[in-house]
Amino acid sequence: MKVAVLLSGGLDSSTCLAQAVKTHGSEEVFALSIQYGQKHQREIKSAGDIARRYGVALKFLDLSGIFAESQSALLSHSKNDIVHASYSEQLNELGGSGTVSTYVPFRNGLMLSAAAACAQSLGASEVWYGAHRDDAAGRAYPDCTPEFVAAMNTAIYEGTGHEVRLHAPFINMNKADIVKLGLKLKVPYELTWSCYEGGDRPCGQCGTCIDRLEAFHKNGVRDPLETPEEV
Amino acid sequence: MKVAVLLSGGLDSSTCLAQAVKTHGSEEVFALSIQYGQKHQREIKSAGDIARRYGVALKFLDLSGIFAESQSALLSHSKNDIVHASYSEQLNELGGSGTVSTYVPFRNGLMLSAAAACAQSLGASEVWYGAHRDDAAGRAYPDCTPEFVAAMNTAIYEGTGHEVRLHAPFINMNKADIVKLGLKLKVPYELTWSCYEGGDRPCGQCGTCIDRLEAFHKNGVRDPLETPEEV
Repeated sequence: MKVAVLLSGGLDSSTCLAQAVKTHGSEEVFALSIQYGQKHQREIKSAGDIARRYGVALKFLDLSGIFAESQSALLSHSKNDIVHASYSEQLNELGGSGTVSTYVPFRNGLMLSAAAACAQSLGASEVWYGAHRDDAAGRAYPDCTPEFVAAMNTAIYEGTGHEVRLHAPFINMNKADIVKLGLKLKVPYELTWSCYEGGDRPCGQCGTCIDRLEAFHKNGVRDPLETPEEV
Repeated sequence: MKVAVLLSGGLDSSTCLAQAVKTHGSEEVFALSIQYGQKHQREIKSAGDIARRYGVALKFLDLSGIFAESQSALLSHSKNDIVHASYSEQLNELGGSGTVSTYVPFRNGLMLSAAAACAQSLGASEVWYGAHRDDAAGRAYPDCTPEFVAAMNTAIYEGTGHEVRLHAPFINMNKADIVKLGLKLKVPYELTWSCYEGGDRPCGQCGTCIDRLEAFHKNGVRDPLETPEEV
């Protein structure tokens, strides 16, 4: 069975790709890397490195035109800066729940739809996607919630005439669970990139850096991207 | 309330735009015209003419890269020709149900996701879309069925953090019902384009031409695009 995997080059999607390759073999898997106007190209490079390491085909799509009007802090044309605070601090600021400033309008819905279209064109039966519980918490990223994923799965299944399904293997896991799985699968985390800033090293201060470091620490290991000063 | 309308330039979406303008006023409505690699540009021109006539802003998106691998007969790079037969004949050929050769993989899912992303970026609360019962029949176009539309509505509502909804006002109507409504709304059907071929005049022989002619005839009027020879 052929499957498509959304691959940003980050920790979650790289682990998702590793799981897909383990389940179906690299010949049956292809990855999709999507340019949506993000502030830096560092993660796109990581997606290429990861796909190469796993020997899977990589398809690249540019959807950045669609977000031209958005002021999400994740986008290169936005005047808003990346917030240096953990997601739980950001959710507290929002009164407990609400979309964070790095949410990009319906980005995951769009990426999953593009992936479903490519999957059906290429005869793949599943689209894999690394959404997890931490991103869904407080609807910080509403396009990562179980409610969204369930509806999107039905939309893809019905809209493709029952040919493609959505598979979100981490929907009930948190980031620490994903790292635990990834360490078992020997995911080359040194090749991945999660930081929202595009420097030479991860900033260690944005929401996704803080989450990532914590996920490694909870597993009693160091993030290979962690600088000695951060220990 | 601001709304986005998917506008192909055909009969259904032009009537949908007319209804949206009647409900919300032209100031509150913007149209989205999407290039997805279709065989001709004739309908894109019609979308522009219709948007101008209704005095609504028109946003143009190019999603054609996503369908590079599809062999749908509707796409310019496809080796497959447009079938000259009615949809009911095409469904009979398929044994009663199945996707027709002009189905483009998850095209409507992708267009609706792009529309939802734009809508949320621009502060619009609804995406209007002219899917109807005839296109859904026998799952000829599975991305027009009520099951797909309901799931996509939930996906958009959940994925945008409850900010955007999908509105498909014609989901329980057939094409003749839409023409009936459009005649009442005085839609300038002479500006629209439905034919899958890109000639100077509609071919009168593709599925959508046959459906369109029949929808006008059922209302006891002539299609303004109909040539005298076809009467």
